Amino acid sequence: MPRYKIIVEYLGTKYSGWQKQNNLNTIQAEIELALLKFCGHQIRVFGSGRTDAGVHAFGQAAHFDLLTNYPADVVFRALNFYLQNTGIAILNVTEVDESFDARFSAIRRNYLYKIINRSAPIAINQGLALFISRKLLIEKMQESCQYFIGRHDFSAFRSSECRAKSPIKTVSKCQILYNQDIIEIYVSADSFLQHMVRNIVGTLLMVGDGKIAPIHIQDILKSGSRKNAGPTAAAWGLYYLSVDY
Amino acid sequence: MPRYKIIVEYLGTKYSGWQKQNNLNTIQAEIELALLKFCGHQIRVFGSGRTDAGVHAFGQAAHFDLLTNYPADVVFRALNFYLQNTGIAILNVTEVDESFDARFSAIRRNYLYKIINRSAPIAINQGLALFISRKLLIEKMQESCQYFIGRHDFSAFRSSECRAKSPIKTVSKCQILYNQDIIEIYVSADSFLQHMVRNIVGTLLMVGDGKIAPIHIQDILKSGSRKNAGPTAAAWGLYYLSVDY
Repeated sequence: MPRYKIIVEYLGTKYSGWQKQNNLNTIQAEIELALLKFCGHQIRVFGSGRTDAGVHAFGQAAHFDLLTNYPADVVFRALNFYLQNTGIAILNVTEVDESFDARFSAIRRNYLYKIINRSAPIAINQGLALFISRKLLIEKMQESCQYFIGRHDFSAFRSSECRAKSPIKTVSKCQILYNQDIIEIYVSADSFLQHMVRNIVGTLLMVGDGKIAPIHIQDILKSGSRKNAGPTAAAWGLYYLSVDY
Repeated sequence: MPRYKIIVEYLGTKYSGWQKQNNLNTIQAEIELALLKFCGHQIRVFGSGRTDAGVHAFGQAAHFDLLTNYPADVVFRALNFYLQNTGIAILNVTEVDESFDARFSAIRRNYLYKIINRSAPIAINQGLALFISRKLLIEKMQESCQYFIGRHDFSAFRSSECRAKSPIKTVSKCQILYNQDIIEIYVSADSFLQHMVRNIVGTLLMVGDGKIAPIHIQDILKSGSRKNAGPTAAAWGLYYLSVDY
């Protein structure tokens, strides 16, 4: 059976996340419905990773197998046709070898967290970035990034509902760029625990608010205790950027 | 009476433009309503220029007079409080001399038109940029920009409903930047005729589609005939960026 890899952009606002769940609107379910309309039978879609309710994606990756060998371009156009007005767009379809698995072949996941830090509320990018009116200590937040990089036990940054086998992850990138009032936090790792990026951001915001010093990140990591890290930052600031294979 | 200058960001999607009109949702009416809630009496707001239905703004400017001399910061917070969830945000409030007039003191208006040019539909920025799936000849569009710059009779780029006294305008900037599939068209002039930026963009798109050569812009300008220019580009790609005084 021919296997296809897709790259997916989505506006997470009205979805209960990537993963299919009973009676909830999810991205996976919408794409499977589009495939059903296209092929006339149920096809299972396998994502590279789950995203929480409300989280957006510029480049989620997934794969599925079809019974018929359609050209990638036909699949691309059919999926986008059936996904009209869903807030989901298929950016790319490629035929891949059956050894390819969107989840298990992935070597790195890249996330972006967007913050607008200014006294005026957000009008245009409402729902597309976290709004913070109090002035953040951005240089301190930048100084904190180094402590996340490397192979660590991220238990302190893990949701209590996380089902991952191991809390050990390797963060290859943690970088903060800012331009006027727009702050962009880039985090990459081999894989992530549930809420890990949002908990890292919540902890960076504690530094940004002057509540803890950058070096204190080391203690939080060592403690392995979720209660020492910051609160989970809002879903609507988070973007699943891309997956490396 | 103290006069205040405000800078306004708005998501134009659900509004019938800036200018107050009977029974329609407009930005001006929303701000006047917020001022009424704050001060308890009707206050007229004067914008630097009208924007069409659906057009967004990152930096519209306006002024109004209050009966009481409130600190600018109090006005800033009160307006943003009463404008919650309207898609309108006041970025800045400053007290200005009574000789200041948002419309007549303006020396330059700056607009941005955003296009996403790729085969995949828009998911995340739906309503925030014009989507064009056919591949545009961007270099040809860039070559066309020079012909708009300078003092010209823009009758060919004017809406039939435009009430401006003179069609002569001075365009000081017409520049196209692009980064991957995002095209940004920047246009600045002393002032603009109705639909002028959108008609310039519609004409640049004719060049981008290979329908006319860049140099043909000169003939369209000289003809003074609206039928020779391109169609009016969609409102949702347009942003009123800022006003220079």
